[in-house]
Amino acid sequence: MERFMDKDFLLDTPTAKHLFHDYCENMPICDYHCHLSPKEIYENKQPNDIAELWLKGDHYKWRAMRSCGVDEEYCTGNKTGKEKFEKFAYALQYAVGNPLYHWAHIELQRYFNIDTPLCAKTADEIYERANNEIANGDFRPQSLITNSNVKVVCTTDDPVDDLKYHKLLKEVKDFDCKVRPSFRPDKALNINLPGFAQYIKELANAAGVEINSYKDVITALLLRADYFDSVGCKVSDQAFDYVPFKQESDDKIDKIFKKAMNGEPVTEEEADAYKTPVLLALGEKYSSLGWTMEVHIGAMRNNNTAMFNKLGPDTGFDSVGDCNVAYNLSRFLDALNVNGKLPKTILFNLNNKDNIVLATMLGNFQSSEAESKLQFGPAWWFLDTMDGMTDQMKFLGNLGILGKFVGMETDSRSFTSYGRHEYFRRIMCALIGKWVEDGWYAPDDEMLKEIVQGISYNNAMNYFKF
Amino acid sequence: MERFMDKDFLLDTPTAKHLFHDYCENMPICDYHCHLSPKEIYENKQPNDIAELWLKGDHYKWRAMRSCGVDEEYCTGNKTGKEKFEKFAYALQYAVGNPLYHWAHIELQRYFNIDTPLCAKTADEIYERANNEIANGDFRPQSLITNSNVKVVCTTDDPVDDLKYHKLLKEVKDFDCKVRPSFRPDKALNINLPGFAQYIKELANAAGVEINSYKDVITALLLRADYFDSVGCKVSDQAFDYVPFKQESDDKIDKIFKKAMNGEPVTEEEADAYKTPVLLALGEKYSSLGWTMEVHIGAMRNNNTAMFNKLGPDTGFDSVGDCNVAYNLSRFLDALNVNGKLPKTILFNLNNKDNIVLATMLGNFQSSEAESKLQFGPAWWFLDTMDGMTDQMKFLGNLGILGKFVGMETDSRSFTSYGRHEYFRRIMCALIGKWVEDGWYAPDDEMLKEIVQGISYNNAMNYFKF
Amino acid sequence: MERFMDKDFLLDTPTAKHLFHDYCENMPICDYHCHLSPKEIYENKQPNDIAELWLKGDHYKWRAMRSCGVDEEYCTGNKTGKEKFEKFAYALQYAVGNPLYHWAHIELQRYFNIDTPLCAKTADEIYERANNEIANGDFRPQSLITNSNVKVVCTTDDPVDDLKYHKLLKEVKDFDCKVRPSFRPDKALNINLPGFAQYIKELANAAGVEINSYKDVITALLLRADYFDSVGCKVSDQAFDYVPFKQESDDKIDKIFKKAMNGEPVTEEEADAYKTPVLLALGEKYSSLGWTMEVHIGAMRNNNTAMFNKLGPDTGFDSVGDCNVAYNLSRFLDALNVNGKLPKTILFNLNNKDNIVLATMLGNFQSSEAESKLQFGPAWWFLDTMDGMTDQMKFLGNLGILGKFVGMETDSRSFTSYGRHEYFRRIMCALIGKWVEDGWYAPDDEMLKEIVQGISYNNAMNYFKF
Repeated sequence: MERFMDKDFLLDTPTAKHLFHDYCENMPICDYHCHLSPKEIYENKQPNDIAELWLKGDHYKWRAMRSCGVDEEYCTGNKTGKEKFEKFAYALQYAVGNPLYHWAHIELQRYFNIDTPLCAKTADEIYERANNEIANGDFRPQSLITNSNVKVVCTTDDPVDDLKYHKLLKEVKDFDCKVRPSFRPDKALNINLPGFAQYIKELANAAGVEINSYKDVITALLLRADYFDSVGCKVSDQAFDYVPFKQESDDKIDKIFKKAMNGEPVTEEEADAYKTPVLLALGEKYSSLGWTMEVHIGAMRNNNTAMFNKLGPDTGFDSVGDCNVAYNLSRFLDALNVNGKLPKTILFNLNNKDNIVLATMLGNFQSSEAESKLQFGPAWWFLDTMDGMTDQMKFLGNLGILGKFVGMETDSRSFTSYGRHEYFRRIMCALIGKWVEDGWYAPDDEMLKEIVQGISYNNAMNYFKF
Repeated sequence: MERFMDKDFLLDTPTAKHLFHDYCENMPICDYHCHLSPKEIYENKQPNDIAELWLKGDHYKWRAMRSCGVDEEYCTGNKTGKEKFEKFAYALQYAVGNPLYHWAHIELQRYFNIDTPLCAKTADEIYERANNEIANGDFRPQSLITNSNVKVVCTTDDPVDDLKYHKLLKEVKDFDCKVRPSFRPDKALNINLPGFAQYIKELANAAGVEINSYKDVITALLLRADYFDSVGCKVSDQAFDYVPFKQESDDKIDKIFKKAMNGEPVTEEEADAYKTPVLLALGEKYSSLGWTMEVHIGAMRNNNTAMFNKLGPDTGFDSVGDCNVAYNLSRFLDALNVNGKLPKTILFNLNNKDNIVLATMLGNFQSSEAESKLQFGPAWWFLDTMDGMTDQMKFLGNLGILGKFVGMETDSRSFTSYGRHEYFRRIMCALIGKWVEDGWYAPDDEMLKEIVQGISYNNAMNYFKF
Repeated sequence: MERFMDKDFLLDTPTAKHLFHDYCENMPICDYHCHLSPKEIYENKQPNDIAELWLKGDHYKWRAMRSCGVDEEYCTGNKTGKEKFEKFAYALQYAVGNPLYHWAHIELQRYFNIDTPLCAKTADEIYERANNEIANGDFRPQSLITNSNVKVVCTTDDPVDDLKYHKLLKEVKDFDCKVRPSFRPDKALNINLPGFAQYIKELANAAGVEINSYKDVITALLLRADYFDSVGCKVSDQAFDYVPFKQESDDKIDKIFKKAMNGEPVTEEEADAYKTPVLLALGEKYSSLGWTMEVHIGAMRNNNTAMFNKLGPDTGFDSVGDCNVAYNLSRFLDALNVNGKLPKTILFNLNNKDNIVLATMLGNFQSSEAESKLQFGPAWWFLDTMDGMTDQMKFLGNLGILGKFVGMETDSRSFTSYGRHEYFRRIMCALIGKWVEDGWYAPDDEMLKEIVQGISYNNAMNYFKF
């Protein structure tokens, strides 16, 4: 039996151990997509205890607790840190097979020097030891980031954001990490969601233009993209439950836009007609700025109305949708490509049924503008599991060029989640190591080093041009 | 090489062997969903031979035979038991990888003390030995059930059923198994299938009410639910090819209902409009009765018109559908939940593409009312295979809390199919055992015992409150 | 560590080695679906160099190169053979996990006696050695085919084809391989694609009939089917992005047909209404001729408009679609079956989400007309990978009768691609061997020999009746 989560965790062959320990373990991190707060990074506050660090904002942990019948008071409610931590430990011991179990133990080991498995029996002991580590150590965001060898962090930002903290962070001394904004225009696209009209006013204000038509929305967004670019942005991100693509006349689109601005309801079809030209204009802009366009497909958000009304979004009530994606995605990418304006693009799916669709879509639009200009994004959110990551790499390996993969990002809201890069690298080295051990790939150590270091860090740095 | 299907069948690590043999093998069975006939259990007749026991009503076996080119005369036709058994043995030898191959051998070993692999060469010998065992043994339903250590059996019953045999079974002495009805209102929902109007009359009769509107249908169903509850029912079951959800005005729904009662055709959209309020009313009722709502999604039934006309339903001409399910399922569950009326719910999928949709849907609606109030049902029917079961547990493990899983049911029509619980437990212990051996889960024997015994039996008993 | 791609490549158990080396390795090949040119087979020309053999028409290789950022000049452009080969070698070294990597090395070993792994470092040496082998050896199509022990080749042919080369090939002496046409009526079905009206004129001409209605199209196609039958055709093939099934009145269908013949646009729904009766008539014809109907489902073709305009179809810009397929496929097969006119049918899917739909659809329509009359086609194109083939066989094994599977075809455009049969047989023997080693299937060597030789060759010969 292997020892529980020791230094060779997940590395089940000699080649896997060699690739990870000798080539990947100490590579820097390029975290090209996450949800960290630039304000919190800048303010750089020491947390009070592990309950604050772990349980204040982590919907993964809340979901696990709720699934064990734990009352909401222990998740987002008013129970004490210790009470919450105990309930989390209770839930975790039943979470066999869940990446949360591994993430928690990697974090305990790497950040708190605690090797004891966390369960109901050990909860109080670990709570105390972890809090001692915090009391006597440096758990400020900038320290956690630089101690994790993170060289680039791309946050996720609204076009109306003034990026004040990104600018301030550039001036911070002894913080050797580029914190870059990412341009996420979802609110300007979601014409059929509440708050759209109000948001468009904010956008007009931020861009310093009047917005009276959908083309004015585009103008404003492009101005904001220029502003983001000036602050160092290299990445945009869009989140789709499905890929909208419906081409209509200007006139019709403007009528839809006016309806929305007047607070009238807009159908899904009308929304698609509005989103299509806005997205195409944005794609062209990203292409001309040399940015990468990230497309996250397949989340179905805010399913629980009662809890949404109580807690708002991003609190653990999202799940995986199953819309068909292939045709519209093809038409969207082709519409940009036919004009020579398809930017570097990373396609992420949340439903594993889309692995083959995305992994083969890439090949339709590759070109000499970049090595693997179209990328299959790493397994994300509900797929950010051992099986999900392994499958994503197998599909990319089977159907594309795994050796040019830009690799992992955390997609996280937590400063101790860099263990997810370690987790990914172990899985990646296990997969490639197994292929080599089984005689499926030539035992060419020079190439293997280039490939695994590429996927760990180098490919991303070459691709994004940070 | 491992020996063929010996005592350590499927148990490929020391931990798997330990968990199965020391903790799971002798646990009782709670078979919370099956299609056994309460009449046959009550009448408790000894079968004549293994052909009657195995081949009289088992569409799994007929499909395998037909797939080998065996004529229908040997499946549902007039050939002798021996001739049918020989053809089944012929087909089985080509069924490498099929769970039928394992089920048949588990049954031969456990019920007939026969270790010889079944194939064309051994068919006659095994036919004779098995029939000797029957002639000299006790193969009556009640004996098969209690010898298999089954404590609870939930049959599947129509709301119009008088549950006579369930009542009679309560009075049977020396039969230590609770045989409970389950409430399956499919016929009252399927407004667009032939026979609906006639069925509604039977329902009115059974409930002792007049039915002139869709609300009267609801009234009748709720009365029948009360009656089922009084006989010990704790579970309802609904079968959907997709999840209907379409909200319309009362007036429109009643027009649809009247069309159906007049024998006029009803479109799929109209049927959904009718089903939606009926299902919501039923869900609320289940919630107030403390029942569990089972939802089986994804079968596409009666595909072969010629054979349907000849043999009727449930004869082996069903397959897996591929409708999209996420959005409507979310809206249906939310509509109940927003009023605080979502019952305990088990979601079953027949198409493996829906694993991730269902496994993540659970988390949207968990609460402190039960441990894993929303459950991901065990792999079922066409997914009731080694790969299907392993995948279901991996998805639940990756995305939810495997340790609170209510585990297996047979979904069977046969009294010798309790081997499927053994098969499931072996696969479950192999999966969890491997995770422990690989250092993925702490080697905490106390917790592992609780988890594997929970999934085998205890979780179901805690969850359903039988 | 296993040696790189040696004689036991992929054979990871003693039983796998035994089954492959003792029973499968030397079995002949029945390549019942491919895209070889009968003209090229007949003309039997020696290639100039490995670049011509490998890179002149292989869109798999071009995609890999484009995915590494290789310029189009090195794929379909004017660079020299050596320059192209070097770029391919550069790309291949990053294609860890891609079947192209294995295919290329199997071909180097079997056809060129080269064991050196191909990468940028070895490209020039291998280019020279391979070209020496060609210069001093026999790489003519007929020799490649017979040296690969291929007994049957089914090409893919348009109904208007005169099959001149198939007839000529029958007369070639010392060429011990049946080269049979397959009937692929896609152009007569694709009423909504450009060129339809022109094609119908060619069809009328070939069939010697006037075509003024959709029924005339059917008449012409049936005549051409008779002609194909007279030249030895046993197989038809149709390629669907989804399965069309929409029943309309004759009158309506003829209006649609006339629109198309007048060059007016035809909607997707209208196209389905036209395709449905044509397909049903074809299916009945295949049935009466004793042909097998192949149905390839799920490709999304020509996604890149810019490259389509430059290079045309089949140049590497296709990917996997995700339409729902179950319902229409069921209705189409049932419509033929209900009249006793369902031919032997092989269902192929390109999206792995459809594995379970197809593997269970078979069972709805099996009969005693053939052993596994309905077949689940081998993993194809983007699924023609280790994982794709293993999954296809697992689903067929789990849900049908693997022992009656007709096995592999190359679907290839290249004369050196018979290594794909070897690759398939290794994977098949590994899978079945593992099941035997794990005690899941009886260690009955006689049955195992029958099963693996059946899947390798014998089942196909029995099924198609070549």
